[in-house]
Amino acid sequence: MQPVLDFLKKNEEWFVQELCDYIRYPSISAQPEHKEDLVQCARWLCAHCEGIGLNAEVFETPGNPIVIARTYLERSKDRPHFLVYGHYDVQQPEPLELGKSPPFEPRIEGRSLFGRGACDNKGQHFAHLKAVEAYLKTGTEIPCDITFLIEGEEEVGCTNLQPFLQAHREELLCDAIVVSDTGIPSLRHPALTYALRGITAVEITVHGPSRDLHSGIYGGAVQNPAMALCQLLVGLRDKNGKVTIPGFYKDVVPLSAFEKKQLARIPFKEKELTEFLGVPKLFGERGFTATERRSARPTFEINGLTSGYQGDGSKTIVPAWARAKVTMRLVPNQKPEKITALVQKHLKKICPPGVRLEVAAGHGGEAYMVSPTSPLAKAALRSLKAAFGCEPILLREGGSIPIVNDFKRILGVDTILLGLALPDDNPHSPNEKFDLDAFSKGMALGALLWPELTSTARR
Amino acid sequence: MQPVLDFLKKNEEWFVQELCDYIRYPSISAQPEHKEDLVQCARWLCAHCEGIGLNAEVFETPGNPIVIARTYLERSKDRPHFLVYGHYDVQQPEPLELGKSPPFEPRIEGRSLFGRGACDNKGQHFAHLKAVEAYLKTGTEIPCDITFLIEGEEEVGCTNLQPFLQAHREELLCDAIVVSDTGIPSLRHPALTYALRGITAVEITVHGPSRDLHSGIYGGAVQNPAMALCQLLVGLRDKNGKVTIPGFYKDVVPLSAFEKKQLARIPFKEKELTEFLGVPKLFGERGFTATERRSARPTFEINGLTSGYQGDGSKTIVPAWARAKVTMRLVPNQKPEKITALVQKHLKKICPPGVRLEVAAGHGGEAYMVSPTSPLAKAALRSLKAAFGCEPILLREGGSIPIVNDFKRILGVDTILLGLALPDDNPHSPNEKFDLDAFSKGMALGALLWPELTSTARR
Repeated sequence: MQPVLDFLKKNEEWFVQELCDYIRYPSISAQPEHKEDLVQCARWLCAHCEGIGLNAEVFETPGNPIVIARTYLERSKDRPHFLVYGHYDVQQPEPLELGKSPPFEPRIEGRSLFGRGACDNKGQHFAHLKAVEAYLKTGTEIPCDITFLIEGEEEVGCTNLQPFLQAHREELLCDAIVVSDTGIPSLRHPALTYALRGITAVEITVHGPSRDLHSGIYGGAVQNPAMALCQLLVGLRDKNGKVTIPGFYKDVVPLSAFEKKQLARIPFKEKELTEFLGVPKLFGERGFTATERRSARPTFEINGLTSGYQGDGSKTIVPAWARAKVTMRLVPNQKPEKITALVQKHLKKICPPGVRLEVAAGHGGEAYMVSPTSPLAKAALRSLKAAFGCEPILLREGGSIPIVNDFKRILGVDTILLGLALPDDNPHSPNEKFDLDAFSKGMALGALLWPELTSTARR
Repeated sequence: MQPVLDFLKKNEEWFVQELCDYIRYPSISAQPEHKEDLVQCARWLCAHCEGIGLNAEVFETPGNPIVIARTYLERSKDRPHFLVYGHYDVQQPEPLELGKSPPFEPRIEGRSLFGRGACDNKGQHFAHLKAVEAYLKTGTEIPCDITFLIEGEEEVGCTNLQPFLQAHREELLCDAIVVSDTGIPSLRHPALTYALRGITAVEITVHGPSRDLHSGIYGGAVQNPAMALCQLLVGLRDKNGKVTIPGFYKDVVPLSAFEKKQLARIPFKEKELTEFLGVPKLFGERGFTATERRSARPTFEINGLTSGYQGDGSKTIVPAWARAKVTMRLVPNQKPEKITALVQKHLKKICPPGVRLEVAAGHGGEAYMVSPTSPLAKAALRSLKAAFGCEPILLREGGSIPIVNDFKRILGVDTILLGLALPDDNPHSPNEKFDLDAFSKGMALGALLWPELTSTARR
């Protein structure tokens, strides 16, 4: 292993230059005028993988191409097989006026590499590619087969990934999937993200009169749909932040003492977070810490309210209707469809008189969880400790990463999330950067990972 | 009196033609391109009044002119003086595509005269002018002095009326004011509107985080401002339609048994109103009839809600802020400023944690009431009975007419509201019409009124 790590160290500066070449492609998947840039970026990546010594290929899809790069020519039945997932497409760079330098002209300042896509996700999967390159260039045997799957539509919903996984299921079947696309609190807190929250969206519309009514002439004679909506919404979450939909918490697996202890290790400064978010004080479900509430507890959030007159001044009407957009973050074992049904049932029960209720189910996605004490998790934690030189922490992330559920459903395997993004990396904001120490440690992680993961694989 | 009534009857068809001439002026005060049409309309009206035999004058204002027409050359100290108020400006006629004929080309169909302004308000004050013409043309002595004040900015807030009243206060001082600009349930229900509701507007803004937050990353850690707003709003009105702001009802004068009985005489068909408004059922403050709730009880209405994402689909955010526009209809003796202060105090008290509350006071206007058993009201009721040939009813109107408060404040007198508009006259909608029987009975009312009102005036 030492030659691999030495190679990575020795060539680090050169690898940063290569990463800069990669970042120069404006591979913005949300903007149709960049379609050709995505194609060019995929071709460059494929050629780069070939240059490293991988067996690489560009697959066309109805959308942007998918790059596959393999450490093998033919899969060996005796060796475990792991998949590394990443994406070469990037978020829009707008608003450009807030950027300190052009987003596709990489710039190094201290240990920060600025550029759109530097962190999300080019830099992160590039570290894994370089680690494998180090194995190949130093003649060190990789103890497993590795397939890189780098797609170009992550920022626009991974539309063509599912069909691709289904079409190439046989080839892609593997023991586990590695994804570096999450965050860590600091370089002293390398982390395995072992759980993600799910989500379910609901749109609640309360219909009152057939048109906006003059509040002088009719006010007092009819229910106000906006008030009825407020009454419905406060019937769903109480003043202590607890969701009051009957059955909502039924399937929630309580946090174990071990998990609570692990989550308490995540650095958290209440005053700093309060100031960063600009709120008078933090708030959430009573009986849980802020870290637990953000990542390991389900939530009920109103995302938007619309009713009646919204312009300047006032308009004296009883509005015809009122609408709330709502999403609930779910935790492992809660099923989106079941929760949506509970919401619908409860709303029907508590609907005030004089209005008509309409509840539309929106998108949903299940939560995700890998046991933090599984052999796979333990192997990942050992690699993190060796690469970063300190004790890793166990994270649960509050958001969702839908592809991990697709991997589980289609390929039947777990994903280990080993993020390299720091809290100030601005992945979807102006001035995105990637920390070069994170890159360096990420490459070491990418090297140390394969023997550890291989040791867990049952053949 | 009979010659006067005969004259009106005999010339009715001709008067309708004159009214059509008046309606042909597109005197739309809200549209600057019609400024000259308003001037022309005022001039026509002034000339018409002169032709009748009145002493008429056009007064320039910073906005549209005001027409003054007097039955006297010099005020007699021995005779009572009454003011008839009306307005020659009209609402915008848009959307034109919904009109069955051009709005400024009057059209008669059966007993309906269609045209913008036919009912609101040209036809209604024209009936009073014709009644006075009948006195003058038949040589019948008018027992009082009458001044017509016809303005051109009623539909845009009567901006220049107040300064005009103040500037001409001496000349305009009178015993009472007559306004025909309200409605009646049917020609078999002529009415004196003896009370109007007041209003106070409040804008409630709940500030949460300094920007919209990702609901996955931060959901659970902070208060949701939209939810906090809903909690605040449901703290202001309960499920039975009762306002729960402490002190809100304190100054409300309870409806007397006489008033309740009078309001119960107003024709009301629950099924018809429900269908007309398009609601599943009527709703309002428990313990009061729909008629009472619409006209004689204060209300709390949300006029608009705004928060977070309002577009298609969903956006998983905790919104930075949420806002409600609210108006409360007030009844006589409730003071707008006092109610606004009560709202602010109560909101402050019940504000959920984790957000910052902002309450902005908007416009306000006091309710209005003339005793329905005063000599003035009784005189008006006698005139109505004689003109319409049936027992009049006593109405309270749910909306506000701010000028009556100006009259009271500046001239110190009561206004009697004797509306001629029928429920299907569409005053602010396409296809406005004026009922020719209402016009006919309105002219008779205009003739019969003066001896009755004069009998009440203390000299």
